[in-house]
Amino acid sequence: MKARVHITLKNGVLDPQGKAVEHALHGLGFGGVSGVRQGKFIELNLTSTDRVAAKKEVEDMCRALLANTVIENYAVEVVD
Amino acid sequence: MKARVHITLKNGVLDPQGKAVEHALHGLGFGGVSGVRQGKFIELNLTSTDRVAAKKEVEDMCRALLANTVIENYAVEVVD
Repeated sequence: MKARVHITLKNGVLDPQGKAVEHALHGLGFGGVSGVRQGKFIELNLTSTDRVAAKKEVEDMCRALLANTVIENYAVEVVD
Repeated sequence: MKARVHITLKNGVLDPQGKAVEHALHGLGFGGVSGVRQGKFIELNLTSTDRVAAKKEVEDMCRALLANTVIENYAVEVVD
């Protein structure tokens, strides 16, 4: 099974990296851009063949390592 | 309009960050994980109200700044 994980900063948490990207985009002439937020996207393969168990396992990984749950949200999607 | 951008390493490009995550997951007891690849996920708002123009603009941003097209792929999705 393949899983895709999105890790994004929670609302209200400052995103200096996103701000820097936004500033650079303005400098390049893309003036209509605002609210840039940068997160992480992780793809991984699992040996598990059960969809529900696979999702639970990846959510455990998010809490244990992939995401900092104090400031970040995670969303897990199991693909085939 | 809101846009979501996924930036991922091209196939064949080494991903030391993904490898490090994979190694750490094995160390935490998640033995069934393989092929971890880490990419970027960017969300942004646009003043443009035309879906097609918005997508084109974000693709231009990807080529100009967000992605290194030598080693990275990008995928743009325009949401409402």
